[in-house]
Amino acid sequence: MKIEENSELGKLREQIKIITEDIFLLVSKRNSISKQIGVYKSEKDLPIVDVKTEQSLFSSVKEICKRENISEDLGMKILGLLINESISVQKNDPISSNSHTAIIAEARRIEKQGKPVIHLEIGEPDYGPPDSVINDTFSAMRDGRTNYVEPAGILPLRKRAAEYIESRFNKKVDSDNVLITTGGRFAVYAALATCIKPGDSVLVFQPAWPAYANLAESLGARIITYNTSFDDRWIPDINEVVSLFDDTVKMIILNTPNNPTGSILSRDFMESLSEESSKRGIYILSDEVYSEMSFKPFTSIFETENSRSILISSLSKSHGMTGFRVGYAVADKSIIKKNGFSSKCFDY
Amino acid sequence: MKIEENSELGKLREQIKIITEDIFLLVSKRNSISKQIGVYKSEKDLPIVDVKTEQSLFSSVKEICKRENISEDLGMKILGLLINESISVQKNDPISSNSHTAIIAEARRIEKQGKPVIHLEIGEPDYGPPDSVINDTFSAMRDGRTNYVEPAGILPLRKRAAEYIESRFNKKVDSDNVLITTGGRFAVYAALATCIKPGDSVLVFQPAWPAYANLAESLGARIITYNTSFDDRWIPDINEVVSLFDDTVKMIILNTPNNPTGSILSRDFMESLSEESSKRGIYILSDEVYSEMSFKPFTSIFETENSRSILISSLSKSHGMTGFRVGYAVADKSIIKKNGFSSKCFDY
Repeated sequence: MKIEENSELGKLREQIKIITEDIFLLVSKRNSISKQIGVYKSEKDLPIVDVKTEQSLFSSVKEICKRENISEDLGMKILGLLINESISVQKNDPISSNSHTAIIAEARRIEKQGKPVIHLEIGEPDYGPPDSVINDTFSAMRDGRTNYVEPAGILPLRKRAAEYIESRFNKKVDSDNVLITTGGRFAVYAALATCIKPGDSVLVFQPAWPAYANLAESLGARIITYNTSFDDRWIPDINEVVSLFDDTVKMIILNTPNNPTGSILSRDFMESLSEESSKRGIYILSDEVYSEMSFKPFTSIFETENSRSILISSLSKSHGMTGFRVGYAVADKSIIKKNGFSSKCFDY
Repeated sequence: MKIEENSELGKLREQIKIITEDIFLLVSKRNSISKQIGVYKSEKDLPIVDVKTEQSLFSSVKEICKRENISEDLGMKILGLLINESISVQKNDPISSNSHTAIIAEARRIEKQGKPVIHLEIGEPDYGPPDSVINDTFSAMRDGRTNYVEPAGILPLRKRAAEYIESRFNKKVDSDNVLITTGGRFAVYAALATCIKPGDSVLVFQPAWPAYANLAESLGARIITYNTSFDDRWIPDINEVVSLFDDTVKMIILNTPNNPTGSILSRDFMESLSEESSKRGIYILSDEVYSEMSFKPFTSIFETENSRSILISSLSKSHGMTGFRVGYAVADKSIIKKNGFSSKCFDY
């Protein structure tokens, strides 16, 4: 190893070391300018996150990557890290996260004081599973069906889910379009892990289940938030939504019927959104876990035209069996097949 | 927005853009030198990954981060990405991954031809669960215990696991030391996600379940491999193992009894490893899922002294109930409490 220091390899390695150090000196310089921006923004009371500025940075780095033959994935990951650091430096404190489980804990504390609480924070139906679920689970266990199964879910269940979706929404699907997951949450995670790269943007409507933004962020995505309001009956405006589309938006997450507002997205809205997303190759993840509880006409994403639609549902709410953890995702085969997260987490 | 271009904010943003571009020009320069190193190595038939060189880079970047007030987490993440890119550039093809599920498929293909196959690739016991498991599951379902439970697992199960570990290994633990997971695989993932930061090294003994290295790599860790061999009865040499410890090694993953070799790590080995790891603050993740099947004296990591031990097990092998997906991790409360992955993936 000593001789090598003077060799060609040693010289090349020394160059790598110097370049690496230069990169980090620039990162440091970048941080100190970010801090100055933070001071300026706090003086003028401007928001820390500026979507337009970030988007122009992403475009410029994408161009450099193409020109300089750097993998775009690497470029987007590094830029994502740099931007998150800038936000953190400007906030002057570590990136905070809050969870709805804290709200559940607070609700339980208030209940213990004897005060009545209406739980909007957690989707636990007030009925249990049908007897057939319990009896058939028992039979399956007694018949020795207690072994490892395919990570994507057993074929009869995938077939049955496909038949249900096909008959309900008149959309041609078969077992290869279905992935069974440990609850709907993992279906959301699997869809994100499959379709989203670090630096991609994900559009989320608020108020919403915190899992959407939390899971997307944990995979390096940037969240663009659209706030709905009581005055708008919690329904987003399709034109305002479309105006948010740009090169970085790769997925829109819908929840219809919505938890917690109960709002249902109209057929017109679903069709327009599907059409506009389809044109731009944007995925629509539609969490329709409450669709069986809709008291008004409901439109599924699968009743519209977009090959990048991913329908998420589960048996938790429809069958009152939250503890069984049976969720599923239905999508184009190309999406289900490349579902790396599923095999990563459910292999044995 | 137009006016802003000439303002102080506009100027600062322009600087950010220029620095960002400069960073990526250096990344490109780094790649082209990596390519030259790749050519040199392939001519001299040298291995692509050079642990010592990588380690010296990590140390130097850590120093710069400290000096320049860059968060170490950011520095390690960026360096990890750069090194992975270098390896990929030198290999001249994308980073490949292979899965044992491909081996299972091949084994099933051979079996279909009528040839006998001994399955070492998958840990499926040739017995099923005890009747009490089946009957008690049925009773619980009939009693309406089918709702969401605490993400960490229900208290009676955590208590029972703690009692079992305490009585078996004479180590003081209670329910707060236990995390119930969806199979042992998620216990491994949860432990890694909690204890490992991108750029940290994880020491893995081979041959081993591919999940260890795959899950660690997916979290940005670097894998240091120690190969055991038939001639050594698949037992690592403690001195050679300790010689691999350096500032970047943050976790050692053990599997005793080992799948697939069946080897059992001796009490001497476990005690020495625990002592040496403890001195350096290195976590030991000990997968003891086969401990009930040991035909020779077995020593748990919990019979040695290291506050950073994480014992992983499950009911899959001990109770022949792989399909139930009940795994657990036992560790110091500080590790179980900060288990971010658990709440991220098992919240509802």
